[in-house]
Amino acid sequence: MIEAALFGAGRIGKIHAANLARQPGVRLKYVADVHAESAQALAQQHGAAVASVEQALADPAVKAVLIASSTDTHSDLILRAAAAGKAIFCEKPVDLTLERARAAAAAVASAGVLCMIGFQRRFDPTFAAVKARLQAGEIGVPEVLTVTSRDPGAPPVSYIKVSGGIFKDMLIHDFDIFRWILDDEAVSVYATGSCLVDPAIGEAGDLDSAVVTIRTKRGRLCQINASRRAAYGYDQRFEILGSEGMLQAGNHKPTEVVSHTAHSVSCDKPENFFLERYRAAYADEIAHFFDAMINGTPPRTTVQDGLKALELAEAATTSWRENRIVML
Amino acid sequence: MIEAALFGAGRIGKIHAANLARQPGVRLKYVADVHAESAQALAQQHGAAVASVEQALADPAVKAVLIASSTDTHSDLILRAAAAGKAIFCEKPVDLTLERARAAAAAVASAGVLCMIGFQRRFDPTFAAVKARLQAGEIGVPEVLTVTSRDPGAPPVSYIKVSGGIFKDMLIHDFDIFRWILDDEAVSVYATGSCLVDPAIGEAGDLDSAVVTIRTKRGRLCQINASRRAAYGYDQRFEILGSEGMLQAGNHKPTEVVSHTAHSVSCDKPENFFLERYRAAYADEIAHFFDAMINGTPPRTTVQDGLKALELAEAATTSWRENRIVML
Amino acid sequence: MIEAALFGAGRIGKIHAANLARQPGVRLKYVADVHAESAQALAQQHGAAVASVEQALADPAVKAVLIASSTDTHSDLILRAAAAGKAIFCEKPVDLTLERARAAAAAVASAGVLCMIGFQRRFDPTFAAVKARLQAGEIGVPEVLTVTSRDPGAPPVSYIKVSGGIFKDMLIHDFDIFRWILDDEAVSVYATGSCLVDPAIGEAGDLDSAVVTIRTKRGRLCQINASRRAAYGYDQRFEILGSEGMLQAGNHKPTEVVSHTAHSVSCDKPENFFLERYRAAYADEIAHFFDAMINGTPPRTTVQDGLKALELAEAATTSWRENRIVML
Amino acid sequence: MIEAALFGAGRIGKIHAANLARQPGVRLKYVADVHAESAQALAQQHGAAVASVEQALADPAVKAVLIASSTDTHSDLILRAAAAGKAIFCEKPVDLTLERARAAAAAVASAGVLCMIGFQRRFDPTFAAVKARLQAGEIGVPEVLTVTSRDPGAPPVSYIKVSGGIFKDMLIHDFDIFRWILDDEAVSVYATGSCLVDPAIGEAGDLDSAVVTIRTKRGRLCQINASRRAAYGYDQRFEILGSEGMLQAGNHKPTEVVSHTAHSVSCDKPENFFLERYRAAYADEIAHFFDAMINGTPPRTTVQDGLKALELAEAATTSWRENRIVML
Repeated sequence: MIEAALFGAGRIGKIHAANLARQPGVRLKYVADVHAESAQALAQQHGAAVASVEQALADPAVKAVLIASSTDTHSDLILRAAAAGKAIFCEKPVDLTLERARAAAAAVASAGVLCMIGFQRRFDPTFAAVKARLQAGEIGVPEVLTVTSRDPGAPPVSYIKVSGGIFKDMLIHDFDIFRWILDDEAVSVYATGSCLVDPAIGEAGDLDSAVVTIRTKRGRLCQINASRRAAYGYDQRFEILGSEGMLQAGNHKPTEVVSHTAHSVSCDKPENFFLERYRAAYADEIAHFFDAMINGTPPRTTVQDGLKALELAEAATTSWRENRIVML
Repeated sequence: MIEAALFGAGRIGKIHAANLARQPGVRLKYVADVHAESAQALAQQHGAAVASVEQALADPAVKAVLIASSTDTHSDLILRAAAAGKAIFCEKPVDLTLERARAAAAAVASAGVLCMIGFQRRFDPTFAAVKARLQAGEIGVPEVLTVTSRDPGAPPVSYIKVSGGIFKDMLIHDFDIFRWILDDEAVSVYATGSCLVDPAIGEAGDLDSAVVTIRTKRGRLCQINASRRAAYGYDQRFEILGSEGMLQAGNHKPTEVVSHTAHSVSCDKPENFFLERYRAAYADEIAHFFDAMINGTPPRTTVQDGLKALELAEAATTSWRENRIVML
Repeated sequence: MIEAALFGAGRIGKIHAANLARQPGVRLKYVADVHAESAQALAQQHGAAVASVEQALADPAVKAVLIASSTDTHSDLILRAAAAGKAIFCEKPVDLTLERARAAAAAVASAGVLCMIGFQRRFDPTFAAVKARLQAGEIGVPEVLTVTSRDPGAPPVSYIKVSGGIFKDMLIHDFDIFRWILDDEAVSVYATGSCLVDPAIGEAGDLDSAVVTIRTKRGRLCQINASRRAAYGYDQRFEILGSEGMLQAGNHKPTEVVSHTAHSVSCDKPENFFLERYRAAYADEIAHFFDAMINGTPPRTTVQDGLKALELAEAATTSWRENRIVML
Repeated sequence: MIEAALFGAGRIGKIHAANLARQPGVRLKYVADVHAESAQALAQQHGAAVASVEQALADPAVKAVLIASSTDTHSDLILRAAAAGKAIFCEKPVDLTLERARAAAAAVASAGVLCMIGFQRRFDPTFAAVKARLQAGEIGVPEVLTVTSRDPGAPPVSYIKVSGGIFKDMLIHDFDIFRWILDDEAVSVYATGSCLVDPAIGEAGDLDSAVVTIRTKRGRLCQINASRRAAYGYDQRFEILGSEGMLQAGNHKPTEVVSHTAHSVSCDKPENFFLERYRAAYADEIAHFFDAMINGTPPRTTVQDGLKALELAEAATTSWRENRIVML
């Protein structure tokens, strides 16, 4: 039986706790959260105890920690968990600053512990199938990737202000998709954008609509378009053109109903938001984490992936702010 | 805490046990199966005990029984469970003979217990959404229903011989869909068919390809086409034409990948078979059963529905065998 | 240069005249119509002369006649044109009575002239592609055909009264599709239906909603569902299940726009009615007629096809009126 | 009767001649081409005479000229036709150099003649429907446009060398779509690309894979991705995100057949290339040209549109060659 500690009992922490509960041979021993009531409620639901981070890390029975606390705590918790020799699953991003993220990555490397970053999209059934079929050679050599990434609606400006900006907060996932699907590293990044959704986002120094272009070492090309608002729901698609064809990853729909009326022929809108769209992905990434831990399966994401995505987010931010192409 | 007994630890029994385990306030107390090892394994997995049917029914703490044993035991178990005052969930069909099914229905009525029949398709997200939108008036008054019902491949002839024939074994679900969607009762049934898939099925006295036409009291029309084989997978669709439009229920796909190559533009085939397609439906029907039991929510299916579907299957069988239109 | 005469200058006559004008080496010489002004206008548009049927048939320079006049004149005009040794293109149906249709077919046979019947659906790009792929073996041996045939709205009752009834007027096309796609002949026909759209159609002794089941010599199965009204437009689809797969013929849309809004994800409704949907088919059948005439290409439809479809319409009418299965 | 002259009897000239022949009240009087046999053949087919450009422009009966000759002759022919007071329809691009294109535009302006540029995509049924629905407010205010523009295969390098490069030769259409759909002008252009299809294209100083980002005065965003090769055929799509939704313009398919087999569920590939995809658009733009000429309908494209698209192509070329963002 593997015993685990969960840091963070918020929305995403609850999802991880429920998925952890479904892993055979794994038990949630501790829940830690700055908000005591949340920790208490979640711990009770899963037969775990409330503990401080210190207590949890000090318990040698705890072999794994799941970090789902606020972003500003991630890199510090990785450092401490690595020092304690725990296997680590940490939500994205590793940190909002490259320096601290690099320190976390270095700590993981020197401790030699498993550290997966929560890029759950790599576990989405549709996205994972595209990756597998691409690797199987179905469309030849990959050439051009286009990514559409749109939230159903903008978060409050209070969130925007601490988010690290659209590139680190939202496109961090798309930067990871870029690296994973094109299987190559960036040599140049160009980003621009606008505030078309909510002027208050602009006043907070951020964008709500952004477009990014990346060119890779092998000359492959990537375009990302992102928006904080899509009136029709959560829009998460990409297309990869290869020398012998194209693979498209489309949105998921709640049902397969098609309605024909005098007005239109219509089907369901995409699933509402990330909790719905990535439900299966969240389950699979936790299963994969424990599989990697128990069976030594190579982890599908690493702290290096977290670092690389952050470097791209940093480059995009610079490109936009300084209105220039950033060479990497 | 509601305690429940499960009769039958086979493929479908395991699914029900797992879904039961997710219901808050519900606990599986006993598992009964003629195959002791299966009962033992499933009981152990869920912290339940192995028991005989007698023992389970005699325990007053058991408030609910789930019947997932072989078809020939269904009506008898319903009779005994009703006599014991238990709430009953029973897999379809109620029985292969109308006489015994009617006896079971009468016993349920006189005992005044809840008895849901496992027409899980009514809980499929797509089918349930069509029903809800139909009831909301989206396409006006329903007029014509067409149902396509195809298995990926034919079962062994040994199964065919004890199945009750294609109409009771396979179309029983489609007859229930007909009643549920058209919200009307049949006045005439015409059925015909062929053995186009496997001549051994014909030698066993059954059909592998069947078509049925039903006319209702209000003049509504239904056509069902069924086959034991669809090379492309499990095909479960229907379309309902109404005075103001049409609603289509389509197949579910594992992913939303679209592939463009020099040869074709293609998407996923339908989900493989009923365990995949109706996974959500199986979960929802068990949740609904306990909701009906605990909160008095009107059950979405009843033993009467089981009886009515069986009457239609009987009429279709007669129509085919005697090559005549059967008036009800 | 082939010279042709056109009998009938109405809606469909105009279409044939325009398509005829595009055939190289073909010239419209005469237009005949009981309505003199229509004949005059159409003749003038195409540089042709107005003539009586007698005059046109008496002119030895006329090698081809196109019959697009009212249904009650078809068989008589075929008889006369066959006697005059002309190649004949005639709109469906050959006649409303089997006796007269058989006389027309016999006259064509004894005269040894080309006689194509206007089952234009065989020339529709989608339908023709299904037929070609079926013949190429893409889905193995055909087993079950389902046909959906719905008009956008019911015609006036005055039209219904002289139409010959829904089976001869509307399903005649579907009966031809059945024979063409299943490549087999019927052994039994069952038809039923209702008046769900307009009670006046029922008072006129006809149906507005009809379903037909046909079983063939080789045991293949066909279900047709037809309605005089589909609120969402002209619905013309079929599906053919084979031993190795299924081919579907879908509706055509005016554009490939998809709209995502807060309310729905929608695409275009089907093309409005037969003039739009079968525009390409009308053009191709006329080209094919002259190709058969000039180059001896085997005609895709013959007067025998017209006769066979009428026999099925007659059988369906009898089945419905007498509430019995009609064996052929 | 309007008499017209056609300059250029190649592939696209033949299409325009055929479409011109369908316009009521319009007659093709002259065909001019440096290749005498082509001119002769096309003139004969349409009952026109072969003439030199001088002769055609000198004939006062000629009111309209259609320029479909090689790109290097366009601006000169516009200058001369404008000087002769003719209405002008000219294929894209106006010229490969901005200077000469501006001279042509100035000549048109000073002559006050109609001059439409052959951006036929504005007449495509799908693209035109998106524009109309956008103008009708279906998705609110436009924000982000993404354009996919891929040829089925790369042309010979001999063509590439005289083409003006991928931005002027191929993306010129997409630049026009950008202006038309976003209804705004560019303030910045960023372009990059690679040779991933054919190294010989790179040796000729051009790209075969290109991506462009444009930002507009109102802060709207546009991303274009283009490739000289799509193994699956001609790929011409765009998506426009607005404040209240999204409109997608999809590819056209030859038929609406869907095939289900053991291997896949597939539909037709996109129509092969521009002659197939834009058949309706070519017809509509010629009809529109004569409608503008005869009835004064505002022309949907002007020489200014041709100039603006060329400016964007020039800016993109500079951006790519100098690896910098070009501000306009």
